[in-house]
Amino acid sequence: MSKAISFGAEVLPVTVSSTTLRELLLSKELTFLMEAHDGLSAAIAERAGFRGLWASGLSIASALGYRDANEASWTQVVDVVERIVDATDIPVLVDGDSGFGNFNNARLVARKLEQRGASGMCLEDKGFPKLNSFVGDRHPLADIDEFCGRLKAVKDTTGPDFVVVARIEALIAGHGLDEALVRAEAYAEAGPDAILIHSGKAVADEILTFAQEWSKLPIVIVPTKYYKTPASVFRDAGISTVIWANHSMRAAIAGMRDICGRIWSEESIAGIEDHVAGLDELFSLIGYHELAQAEEQYLPKRTAERRPSDSDQVQKFDN
Amino acid sequence: MSKAISFGAEVLPVTVSSTTLRELLLSKELTFLMEAHDGLSAAIAERAGFRGLWASGLSIASALGYRDANEASWTQVVDVVERIVDATDIPVLVDGDSGFGNFNNARLVARKLEQRGASGMCLEDKGFPKLNSFVGDRHPLADIDEFCGRLKAVKDTTGPDFVVVARIEALIAGHGLDEALVRAEAYAEAGPDAILIHSGKAVADEILTFAQEWSKLPIVIVPTKYYKTPASVFRDAGISTVIWANHSMRAAIAGMRDICGRIWSEESIAGIEDHVAGLDELFSLIGYHELAQAEEQYLPKRTAERRPSDSDQVQKFDN
Amino acid sequence: MSKAISFGAEVLPVTVSSTTLRELLLSKELTFLMEAHDGLSAAIAERAGFRGLWASGLSIASALGYRDANEASWTQVVDVVERIVDATDIPVLVDGDSGFGNFNNARLVARKLEQRGASGMCLEDKGFPKLNSFVGDRHPLADIDEFCGRLKAVKDTTGPDFVVVARIEALIAGHGLDEALVRAEAYAEAGPDAILIHSGKAVADEILTFAQEWSKLPIVIVPTKYYKTPASVFRDAGISTVIWANHSMRAAIAGMRDICGRIWSEESIAGIEDHVAGLDELFSLIGYHELAQAEEQYLPKRTAERRPSDSDQVQKFDN
Amino acid sequence: MSKAISFGAEVLPVTVSSTTLRELLLSKELTFLMEAHDGLSAAIAERAGFRGLWASGLSIASALGYRDANEASWTQVVDVVERIVDATDIPVLVDGDSGFGNFNNARLVARKLEQRGASGMCLEDKGFPKLNSFVGDRHPLADIDEFCGRLKAVKDTTGPDFVVVARIEALIAGHGLDEALVRAEAYAEAGPDAILIHSGKAVADEILTFAQEWSKLPIVIVPTKYYKTPASVFRDAGISTVIWANHSMRAAIAGMRDICGRIWSEESIAGIEDHVAGLDELFSLIGYHELAQAEEQYLPKRTAERRPSDSDQVQKFDN
Repeated sequence: MSKAISFGAEVLPVTVSSTTLRELLLSKELTFLMEAHDGLSAAIAERAGFRGLWASGLSIASALGYRDANEASWTQVVDVVERIVDATDIPVLVDGDSGFGNFNNARLVARKLEQRGASGMCLEDKGFPKLNSFVGDRHPLADIDEFCGRLKAVKDTTGPDFVVVARIEALIAGHGLDEALVRAEAYAEAGPDAILIHSGKAVADEILTFAQEWSKLPIVIVPTKYYKTPASVFRDAGISTVIWANHSMRAAIAGMRDICGRIWSEESIAGIEDHVAGLDELFSLIGYHELAQAEEQYLPKRTAERRPSDSDQVQKFDN
Repeated sequence: MSKAISFGAEVLPVTVSSTTLRELLLSKELTFLMEAHDGLSAAIAERAGFRGLWASGLSIASALGYRDANEASWTQVVDVVERIVDATDIPVLVDGDSGFGNFNNARLVARKLEQRGASGMCLEDKGFPKLNSFVGDRHPLADIDEFCGRLKAVKDTTGPDFVVVARIEALIAGHGLDEALVRAEAYAEAGPDAILIHSGKAVADEILTFAQEWSKLPIVIVPTKYYKTPASVFRDAGISTVIWANHSMRAAIAGMRDICGRIWSEESIAGIEDHVAGLDELFSLIGYHELAQAEEQYLPKRTAERRPSDSDQVQKFDN
Repeated sequence: MSKAISFGAEVLPVTVSSTTLRELLLSKELTFLMEAHDGLSAAIAERAGFRGLWASGLSIASALGYRDANEASWTQVVDVVERIVDATDIPVLVDGDSGFGNFNNARLVARKLEQRGASGMCLEDKGFPKLNSFVGDRHPLADIDEFCGRLKAVKDTTGPDFVVVARIEALIAGHGLDEALVRAEAYAEAGPDAILIHSGKAVADEILTFAQEWSKLPIVIVPTKYYKTPASVFRDAGISTVIWANHSMRAAIAGMRDICGRIWSEESIAGIEDHVAGLDELFSLIGYHELAQAEEQYLPKRTAERRPSDSDQVQKFDN
Repeated sequence: MSKAISFGAEVLPVTVSSTTLRELLLSKELTFLMEAHDGLSAAIAERAGFRGLWASGLSIASALGYRDANEASWTQVVDVVERIVDATDIPVLVDGDSGFGNFNNARLVARKLEQRGASGMCLEDKGFPKLNSFVGDRHPLADIDEFCGRLKAVKDTTGPDFVVVARIEALIAGHGLDEALVRAEAYAEAGPDAILIHSGKAVADEILTFAQEWSKLPIVIVPTKYYKTPASVFRDAGISTVIWANHSMRAAIAGMRDICGRIWSEESIAGIEDHVAGLDELFSLIGYHELAQAEEQYLPKRTAERRPSDSDQVQKFDN
């Protein structure tokens, strides 16, 4: 993946190719994908060093003010992913939920994600729409054949570089390891590039057992609940990829809640000025220098002298 | 402003009417508007106590990964404002930049903002598009007559409850107090509900002098640069409204940058778990309990017993 | 429904209130709703005399180049409806298909349609997504209780002026009159404002029998298949409203196909100039005169003389 | 240009590569581009035989119910172009108006059009927004240097296959042939792939003279006004490409206006059934058979017998 020109992001003097999502999945090193939910969070994660992003369904919904119950339309999600891709130069794996309907919806969404520059899509074996869990038995797993059809349709529709990850919810739904293995075996036949095995336990045991018993495809995990397990354990278990699934969004909430609270009670921003990012950091993240260079290059030269008030970039973009 | 049902926000047992933006502008108390750039930041600011929001052009562009140079289309901005309005029950004043073109574009944007539930729009006396300031004399102010036409068109198109704020950039552009006063006088004839007088100085002097010399309409200020001036000074000067223009976005950057940096270097989320918001806080901000209640109310009852794995709401929405 | 200013449509010297959709449904006269699929088709139907519009799911999907299988996202449909509403001053009933998911999706779509100015939504007792019918038994009707939950949720979420029409597909699905009557009875309890009883027969018999046996709510019909039945029969049967469901779209196809064919084979537009609408007709439909008036009103006067080439409006907007 | 899978359009057994827009521009044969304004009109033009499309700004605005005065946002236009591209397999040249702002807006729009699959963009030497022509001297041409900057920025941002057409409005604006030639010469230096020379005269004289005097780049024309000139004259003059700029939209208006008028006055569709397209034609245009095949391929087989009512595809999609 490379871009000759990148709006709203670092512009490199020479086009640089980043590692593809497939290379990350297949590499022998443990890969970490960081959650992003908009262009800004994506640029921050890239700058922190991450080599790939997870466009989280929960986080994207939250930023939009929606519940994570398929309230956001599939085109709204695609539009957010486009902003994430455009703000960075690293591959993006998209949380495609259950595919926004049946195989036909799933392949349409996948094709649009690919068009906007996403590197892959994760599809989970659930129905549409997602439901809240206060009410009883309402999270049935998808029929295996039907879900395999969804996976095949997405693979057949997208190009060879587009990564499809099949996500197994059997453990989350309380069905046990056997069901998870049966599903992994069946799904693998449908052609995905990796399996995401999800667990809601506070320890990694069932994930590790799964990885021990099944290794046909690279394994992706989401250790939100078993967060105390060190990465070395995942490395030893041969896990391919770890997703930090929602932590940028949760960091943003904490940061905004603290600062809003202080500003409200202090009726002033004097005390928090040093605790928030400076505008220079923002401008660097979003590539304002490229715009300045481009204005020099593409706007006609004028003879008028600079006025003093024009000398400060920050001043022009401060609200 | 009131809502019988509010998706993605607190749902109150009885419809509660919040103070309108006009009431805030006209009240004798000093009003503080907090910046928001998406549904989530809006919900956080509301919960912190703020009674009104500023949908900042810079912050909205930044979240989208765009530069603040009118890269985001007017419909993209309107769509973000819709998410802000839907996530809260307090009035939203929208940073309408220069109106996205001429009077016709400005009134179209205003009408759409009103339709989506925004309470007002701020219009500044500049051209389209905004330019970066590394290059010389490229921030000319709008022609006074032309800008008055824009203001009139927006007033004529929107309803009586929709607030129009005329923003004067004369001080920012280095034209001095006289020019600012001439423009305030002219703009006031066009019918706006308030004047925003902007300054890029580190002290509030020119703002305070302006407020002393001109008081035909409520005065709104943006003390991003003169942030050390205490609120009491603004109260004494009879200022109507203070906008904290971009501090939630900057708090989010700081929060995400720190957490991303730690996760990357520590290869673990164990150390940061207590430093990010819990999912309960998110669910409360976005109104998940309303969804749970609604599922009880509108979904058919089922006899199936709850499975253990369904007892934990958090588990269902953790990535 | 009234609009002080109407962009892209006739602007009336005095605000005129059109008959509401509820009034049309309840009136003793037979009402005809004409299909529209974009702003232009809506304006044409209004000018032809129709007092209400049907925003058809099939037609909207077709104009977008989608199949009528819920490929278009719910926000794409809402955006099209917004254009239809903005281009006219008559009420719009929206074909909401099955509600784009469950009760929660349905009420979210309904609330957004209401916000954009639609006057009502029709909800049919099917699942999501719609399926093609080449493959066997895949058009099961919705569970009655579940569908009543969808209807209730939409009624509870929308305002008192927003019309909800419950569409019964029992006859289409081959279940016979009894099933249709059972469903009408059950749905009526959930609070909709009218029942749409659909039939795919070439004669109106089953529709007429239904209307004879059940009259608790106004009855809406779609005589696409039994098109030979004269309106007088519907009047005599006490039908409230007839929807001409897709005929503008099909007229547009015929018109475009004939003209494209001729231009292609003739390599010229000389022969078809008199068979296509003139630009004056377009400008009148879309309200260009309002823009001209507004430019006179809101743009600063200039002293420059008109150049000859500026004297022809058509010339400026001819491609 | 080729597509392995094409939603909403003919799906070919083997991937077929259509002629690129550049090949059409450079070929010695006279090329005809047909106007399209949505997915449906695009599919119709392709089926009629046209090998390329013109995504007209006027027609797209009209379909949306907007005036052709840059009321539609740039993202709304990009979204329509996406539907046009997805519904067809032939190249699309997009009417980019003046670029929706300055060089930075123009290159952003161009890059997004390229991403959505458009083959080229036409950029005209005017300002933003477009103005109505009832009011005086308000259609000044762009400064030559500034416009060259716009062209260069678009060329530098887009890939080598993306075609940029520079449109000269000098003749329309009454400046005469010399000005047009000066601009052609200057613009050519900025790197566009073709020149569109526009004229509002009823005869082709000034276009033909231009083509005689200047031939550095392929010449594109829009004979809306001089429609009586036969194609042979353009061929003899060495013109590259003729754009039929708005005739599908105008054919659709005529078709819809006539049919709406008849349905309204006759209170029946019996008389017009044979004058509108059948649903079979629609289904063929939008590729419903591909959906049927895909359902066979990707949905689990069921044993249930087909019910009689499922045997008729048309019946399922008739409103």
